[in-house]
Amino acid sequence: MPGDRTKTPPETLPPKAVVSRMSLYLRELQQLVASGRETISSTQLGARLGFTDAQVRKDLAYFGQFGYPGLGYRVRELVDAIRRILGTDQDWPAAIVGMGNLGQALIGYKGFAAQNFRVVAAFDNDPAKVGREIEGISVYDFAELPEVVAAAEIRLGIVAVPARAAQQVADQLVAAGVQGILNFAPVNLTVETEIGLVSVDLATQLEQLSFTIVNRRPAEPN
Amino acid sequence: MPGDRTKTPPETLPPKAVVSRMSLYLRELQQLVASGRETISSTQLGARLGFTDAQVRKDLAYFGQFGYPGLGYRVRELVDAIRRILGTDQDWPAAIVGMGNLGQALIGYKGFAAQNFRVVAAFDNDPAKVGREIEGISVYDFAELPEVVAAAEIRLGIVAVPARAAQQVADQLVAAGVQGILNFAPVNLTVETEIGLVSVDLATQLEQLSFTIVNRRPAEPN
Repeated sequence: MPGDRTKTPPETLPPKAVVSRMSLYLRELQQLVASGRETISSTQLGARLGFTDAQVRKDLAYFGQFGYPGLGYRVRELVDAIRRILGTDQDWPAAIVGMGNLGQALIGYKGFAAQNFRVVAAFDNDPAKVGREIEGISVYDFAELPEVVAAAEIRLGIVAVPARAAQQVADQLVAAGVQGILNFAPVNLTVETEIGLVSVDLATQLEQLSFTIVNRRPAEPN
Repeated sequence: MPGDRTKTPPETLPPKAVVSRMSLYLRELQQLVASGRETISSTQLGARLGFTDAQVRKDLAYFGQFGYPGLGYRVRELVDAIRRILGTDQDWPAAIVGMGNLGQALIGYKGFAAQNFRVVAAFDNDPAKVGREIEGISVYDFAELPEVVAAAEIRLGIVAVPARAAQQVADQLVAAGVQGILNFAPVNLTVETEIGLVSVDLATQLEQLSFTIVNRRPAEPN
């Protein structure tokens, strides 16, 4: 059984960049599964992403022993293992706080559900929005947050309020019992160490783009 | 002069993951500058991000020779070099197409301007929005795109329209002369090879969060 080969939990928590690479490996491996490929070596997997084979092996070694001598990794097995590592084999009911433009954009975002993140409730303090449904999700008054989070067993809070309100919202989400916060407000939040916190930096994506442009090559001659 | 140590352009375009790590190095180095640190070794820089020293040196070697024997990297000089590498030492006038929830959220996003990405125009086809200003930015009719892109010398197009409209919008942005596209629509776009294209996948951020939660440690005993 592949699960037996995973160390749970790893003895040392790997750096954030290692976890980020797990998402990259997962997307690549999911594409390989879709294309019918069954095995891949660390060298081949690394080459597709610009990593050395040593980096791939070192990253995966944080979590267990996944390769087979003379064969490499079994693609589908490694997909399952990385989903367990990332926790996306579990169900993640989530709530979005703030039904402004960003919150309404996120509530309709299709990519979350594809990786087991289910938005099940939304919150706002605008009477014109409370009681409505947006994208099929009920909008509750922010004051109802403790009861709704408990009743729906919400594990993640997505903070989409203005910067000045973000810390207070995070505090109330934590008090209500969420395990983690995805923060879109452009401000550094402080939460207790046992609460997960990830903040989204969209500027990095634009840096990828500017790089591509300043380094682009002229088309090959015909 | 530090610029002399940068190969321009690199002989082989590095993989996307290498470029993504340049953004990580840049954020880390910008924090070091802010804290007054002057030099850092590849081992120390790697350790802060969970990379081997060999990975750091290999990544930077795509772009030039930046270290000093016995000293490491000069932090401020490496910040300037990476900004040149990423192209964010240049000015990047940008336009957002689609003033729905996501577009309106992005037009107010503070992180773009901090890295030299300036939103200078917005487009929509809703008569109720055209002619208005949102966050101080004029909203033009989508039909005016060619003239506005040319007049404002817009280099980047940010696609924030529904998936079904995204390819057509991308095509018109390219025809109008933009050099790159940042795509938020959940669809794979096709553009000519000389046009930069980056698509944003927010699910990766949530995977970071679920990982943190499933691997969290109990608090240390008092």
